Amino acid sequence: MYGLIAKLTAVSGLRDELIKILEEGTRNMPGCRSYIVAKDAAEVNVVWVTEIWDSEASHQASLSLPAVKDAVGQAKPLVAGFERVAVTNPVGGVGFPSSD
Amino acid sequence: MYGLIAKLTAVSGLRDELIKILEEGTRNMPGCRSYIVAKDAAEVNVVWVTEIWDSEASHQASLSLPAVKDAVGQAKPLVAGFERVAVTNPVGGVGFPSSD
Repeated sequence: MYGLIAKLTAVSGLRDELIKILEEGTRNMPGCRSYIVAKDAAEVNVVWVTEIWDSEASHQASLSLPAVKDAVGQAKPLVAGFERVAVTNPVGGVGFPSSD
Repeated sequence: MYGLIAKLTAVSGLRDELIKILEEGTRNMPGCRSYIVAKDAAEVNVVWVTEIWDSEASHQASLSLPAVKDAVGQAKPLVAGFERVAVTNPVGGVGFPSSD
């Protein structure tokens, strides 16, 4: 499996709008096992996205999906900062997505 | 919901052992919706844990569970570094755990 942990900083006051775009634009991505959007509990403009994919290739392919390209376009003006915190290899645990 | 993102650095060469303990000790934790253990793809000793709980109280209570206390005790000598990267409020996305 392939995983990502990313930290997005929204333009001040626009976090909720950014979250909405992230949630709506990422619903139907082949190979995506988990795409969790979370607010940082302390930093009011920060959004965390933690992802699990069946492969890096699936993640890469998703970037060409019309809905994802549309979401990226909509999100761009709302994003003041983006940090790819980690690329991971998810291995197990509670709620770990099955590989089928 | 309550979420955590943590970065653990294993004592060199002991990451797999640490992962085993993390997976086995965290299986039956009331209120835990997701506890994903992942290897860092680049740093060979780093483990990422991303968690979703139905509440902060559930997470707090889990620390008193015998299995968790046992796992913490076993893991301690294998952990060279621990960083709580973020406390979050997970809000949605693909694979988002239902709240029931």
